[in-house]
Amino acid sequence: MDNKTYLEGALDVLHQEDRDRIRFIIEMDKMKTIYRQTLLLDQSRTETDAEHSWHLAMLALVLEPHFPEGIDKDKVIRMCLVHDIVEIDAGDTFAYDKEGYKSKAIREEKAADRIYKLLPGEEGQRLRAYWEEFEEGQTSEAKVANSLDRLQPLLAHAYTGGVNWKSHKVVAEDVLVRMEPIRQNLPDLWPMVEELVKRGKERDLLL
Amino acid sequence: MDNKTYLEGALDVLHQEDRDRIRFIIEMDKMKTIYRQTLLLDQSRTETDAEHSWHLAMLALVLEPHFPEGIDKDKVIRMCLVHDIVEIDAGDTFAYDKEGYKSKAIREEKAADRIYKLLPGEEGQRLRAYWEEFEEGQTSEAKVANSLDRLQPLLAHAYTGGVNWKSHKVVAEDVLVRMEPIRQNLPDLWPMVEELVKRGKERDLLL
Repeated sequence: MDNKTYLEGALDVLHQEDRDRIRFIIEMDKMKTIYRQTLLLDQSRTETDAEHSWHLAMLALVLEPHFPEGIDKDKVIRMCLVHDIVEIDAGDTFAYDKEGYKSKAIREEKAADRIYKLLPGEEGQRLRAYWEEFEEGQTSEAKVANSLDRLQPLLAHAYTGGVNWKSHKVVAEDVLVRMEPIRQNLPDLWPMVEELVKRGKERDLLL
Repeated sequence: MDNKTYLEGALDVLHQEDRDRIRFIIEMDKMKTIYRQTLLLDQSRTETDAEHSWHLAMLALVLEPHFPEGIDKDKVIRMCLVHDIVEIDAGDTFAYDKEGYKSKAIREEKAADRIYKLLPGEEGQRLRAYWEEFEEGQTSEAKVANSLDRLQPLLAHAYTGGVNWKSHKVVAEDVLVRMEPIRQNLPDLWPMVEELVKRGKERDLLL
């Protein structure tokens, strides 16, 4: 028996738009099979894009008291949820992989064209707009979401003793540059970032 | 070098409240190490609570057109994000495990007492309130979130050919009872549920 056909057959009883929505939901499962560089804190494996996206949304919930006045907090959460969906096609690019970053934008644009169009009508465009806003990084919501996207792996790298930094020969100064959105948008947390980098350097985890 | 001490040392530069928030964020990483019964669609392993929670939030984003008028859609998303956090202490209980369900409420209440209190002041109570509302299942938002929590594993079980149903000897009638919130709250999707169960029974995936 073909499992896919079993589910697909049952989708026939739905309206076309719902069939498309369910197929998109099924497509999203692939986010659980894209492994990032960031280790889980118990070091049993690296985290998946789905896990990372959930964790970011949780950071958004917990760090709301630090968000600028008047910000749309729920839009930040929505951005966190969708910001890595393009990696289903484009794959994960390690933050300090300078070569990979050169082709990242083109690969991700192509991915967005395919993935968001799985949804009916304007619905995919609505979700894609969150991703585009996140990538452009111009609005308060996008700035905060980008800052969370820097903070979450930083905490993981620090918690796991910098093994990722060490194996990728990451330079302390590059970490500070990459964390710059935190200094600008979540300034209360910046002293911790500086302290982590300083200590990472002292311990030879960072070059 | 003690990795935990490395991170903890850097937290000293933060205010107490931020230290608590960061510690809560770190605690959340455990959601990536709690494995549910639901298989990933590629069957490489079962999904984690973090992945499940993210997927639910995505279902909420995509199925918004089916939500009742006037519902707080973002509250549904927030409920999806936090609804399983108690499993960090209480563990996952398989939906069709009738014995496990007997002690579930007590185990989860105790877990909530510990986990949400990691956050400063009223902040934990604010998140806990989403979970409590979800569990009580009385508001429109909770009803929809509960329906999504039924639909997501159903799709996974169907997509993976009902291997989980088969190994747990799940009864078709029990699936329909468990899916009842979908009939009530997302009725447009109900024909698919009925069709999946009917086909599951025909194929001997369900008793």
